[in-house]
Amino acid sequence: MSDFAPYTLLIQHAAQVLTLAGGPPDRPLAGPDLSSWTIIEQGYVACVDDKIVAVGRMSKLNLAHLGPDTRLIDASGCVVMPGLVECHTHLVFGGNRADEFERKLRGESYLDILAGGGGILSTVRATRAASEAELLAHSLHHLKGFRRYGVTTLEAKSGYGLDRDTELRLVRVAREAGQQQAVRVVPTFLGAHVVPPEFKEAGPRTYVDFILREVLSDLKGEAAFVDIFCEDGAFPLDVSRYYLEQAHKMGFGLKIHAEQLHDLGGCEMAAELGATSIDHCDYLMPDAAARIAQQTAGRTVAVLLPLVPLFLRQQKFADGREFIDSGLPVAVSTDFNPGSCPSKNLWLALSVACLKMGLTAKEAVAAVTLNAAWAIAQQHDCGSLEPGKRADVLVLNVSSVAEVPYWLGENPVRDVVIGGALIA
Amino acid sequence: MSDFAPYTLLIQHAAQVLTLAGGPPDRPLAGPDLSSWTIIEQGYVACVDDKIVAVGRMSKLNLAHLGPDTRLIDASGCVVMPGLVECHTHLVFGGNRADEFERKLRGESYLDILAGGGGILSTVRATRAASEAELLAHSLHHLKGFRRYGVTTLEAKSGYGLDRDTELRLVRVAREAGQQQAVRVVPTFLGAHVVPPEFKEAGPRTYVDFILREVLSDLKGEAAFVDIFCEDGAFPLDVSRYYLEQAHKMGFGLKIHAEQLHDLGGCEMAAELGATSIDHCDYLMPDAAARIAQQTAGRTVAVLLPLVPLFLRQQKFADGREFIDSGLPVAVSTDFNPGSCPSKNLWLALSVACLKMGLTAKEAVAAVTLNAAWAIAQQHDCGSLEPGKRADVLVLNVSSVAEVPYWLGENPVRDVVIGGALIA
Ligand SMILES: [Zn+2]
Ligand SMILES: [Zn+2]
Repeated sequence: MSDFAPYTLLIQHAAQVLTLAGGPPDRPLAGPDLSSWTIIEQGYVACVDDKIVAVGRMSKLNLAHLGPDTRLIDASGCVVMPGLVECHTHLVFGGNRADEFERKLRGESYLDILAGGGGILSTVRATRAASEAELLAHSLHHLKGFRRYGVTTLEAKSGYGLDRDTELRLVRVAREAGQQQAVRVVPTFLGAHVVPPEFKEAGPRTYVDFILREVLSDLKGEAAFVDIFCEDGAFPLDVSRYYLEQAHKMGFGLKIHAEQLHDLGGCEMAAELGATSIDHCDYLMPDAAARIAQQTAGRTVAVLLPLVPLFLRQQKFADGREFIDSGLPVAVSTDFNPGSCPSKNLWLALSVACLKMGLTAKEAVAAVTLNAAWAIAQQHDCGSLEPGKRADVLVLNVSSVAEVPYWLGENPVRDVVIGGALIA
Repeated sequence: MSDFAPYTLLIQHAAQVLTLAGGPPDRPLAGPDLSSWTIIEQGYVACVDDKIVAVGRMSKLNLAHLGPDTRLIDASGCVVMPGLVECHTHLVFGGNRADEFERKLRGESYLDILAGGGGILSTVRATRAASEAELLAHSLHHLKGFRRYGVTTLEAKSGYGLDRDTELRLVRVAREAGQQQAVRVVPTFLGAHVVPPEFKEAGPRTYVDFILREVLSDLKGEAAFVDIFCEDGAFPLDVSRYYLEQAHKMGFGLKIHAEQLHDLGGCEMAAELGATSIDHCDYLMPDAAARIAQQTAGRTVAVLLPLVPLFLRQQKFADGREFIDSGLPVAVSTDFNPGSCPSKNLWLALSVACLKMGLTAKEAVAAVTLNAAWAIAQQHDCGSLEPGKRADVLVLNVSSVAEVPYWLGENPVRDVVIGGALIA
């Protein structure tokens, strides 16, 4: 587009524009970069069609770019920031586990619930039993919820099928859900979520061999990432390494669920293989975090999921403060899923990351925007307000960045713009 | 109204109607009563003007009561329940303390912040400096937020004036805010929040004598309750007792902020004086809770505020489970205020009460409806879906009571009816 094309959208008079700009262009924000990005007071964001073309101070706004068709949004007294990037969800599933949650509140142990057919396998049964149309309808319902919170790009994992057809269906539904509404959906393949009942005897290694042989080859171009849950009761470290190595050879980006409940070394292993993100990290030790930061030159993002220990009534949260201080880039996400975190409120996750993991307001905002974009390899396209990026912009009912984590549990979003279009 | 008056509003086909009915009529729900109230599957709620006139199963609905002017709300697949009663807020204040929150996240101690003029006294300065119109505008803004969460009755404390004129103004603003929109506001006088700078030398006893002499006599009929913050750094136990005794003689209902940070015996003292509620209770011991339950015949309600320790990064939460098991009635509230809990999300408070205090779903629902109504002496008017009560009714986007605490941090409200009128 020409530099002199008239703006199609101008968001103006913002009290603060949180640009997320000013850091290194070739890697996620880490260390001091995580909080030294640029805030413009009394600023504007200008777009032409679906792209941002200019961001600056109102006093520098070039009125020559305004035309009769420029849509104006008044953001007086408001914070303007990039759309939220939700980089870790299990969007597509059947049923919910509210009854199981209630049984836990009444004192039943997770083992009792598992013995009674509950836990993750109950979601697998419900998901396998659901039609593609039902799964799509549920996913669209949840995406609508995310959109209200200002999420404009969202990663969606499979992982409740655990057989060839259902897993492929879940990836298909995620892609289709991304087509049918405005939030961009980035599918990840998590066929290696747990070992399904059919492979209980044969074991984890046999199951991942099955996936590698029968499923991954059909996923090329359909899912950017392959993910695995490395944990006691799911996949051991050696099987996780083998699986990710093979997936890497097939051209997939890598992710891992690791150090959620135990320190098995999954994060360090995956980072060594060049993983785009390492997720959970509640039991990741600060010295291992520092080694990962150094060995990956700060390119692997630790995705922190603070609502999960809160919902599971655990005391241990990832040591975000230490990770940041040791140079490891961090992102924050809900981990939206029916078992360990049925929350789409990424603002709540952001606040709990501050309260329980020691992030500051600017760090937390970076963790749900630019660094979350890096965590799903979308940093070229979203996560900051910079010319050339997609026009995904939020107007918030708060007047300073410090207020973003402050109003605990509330949704500060007033307006959501996705690809230059104001969403109702 | 006649039994045969046509319904003006019929909410029908609800998956579950959470009536909160079926407990003892003369005291709050406690012990097993807290979870044995009636749920009607496939039910309806019928209203004439601002009152509920019938609640029952769809199969028993008397079509003779439907007329051409009966407004119908389809609640298929939804939970229908009473409007939320928010029984402990500090609604009226100037400014906010987001900057102070950010300084705490960066590692500054509360004492450093106090030394720099921060803390509660910064809100007192901002509140004294605000005009009555500004305070009213802020209060209406916050009430709008509460309304979106389905709050239909709300208690509002003064306490950021700490001088005669400002405290009277705060009570006036709370009452006026209640007049200007649909949520009913119940004002409480918390002039004894902390000792103001003007009385620092003279001390707490001199300050409460000033209030008793100069302020309370002007509050008769304006505020139903008198409240005091019994805590180290605020008001000691003996002064609190003296003040509440005097306020009681003047005809006020009693409340207390006690056992928030230390076990000073404030809850037991206030209960002994017949307090309507005892609030915080994080450090209230189970044996004291049992004594209170017995001595008050289960009439004093413990108001639990689970978002406060979360926001203050404390580990200790009130032992709600023990309180319930020992017969003490509990309610749950946000404690909305600029310093220790800037959250209006009562659903989040409800979920955190389950996660951190051990309440079950039905107990938690009772704690934000009928028991919260008892905590502010509004039980005759709201808190349950029973004929004769005000038609304050919510339709939720969930299909069972177990889902109410489950979708962590989300706002499940689809429709809000206050006094028989559907609120946009
Ligand atoms: Zn996950
Ligand atoms: Zn309070």
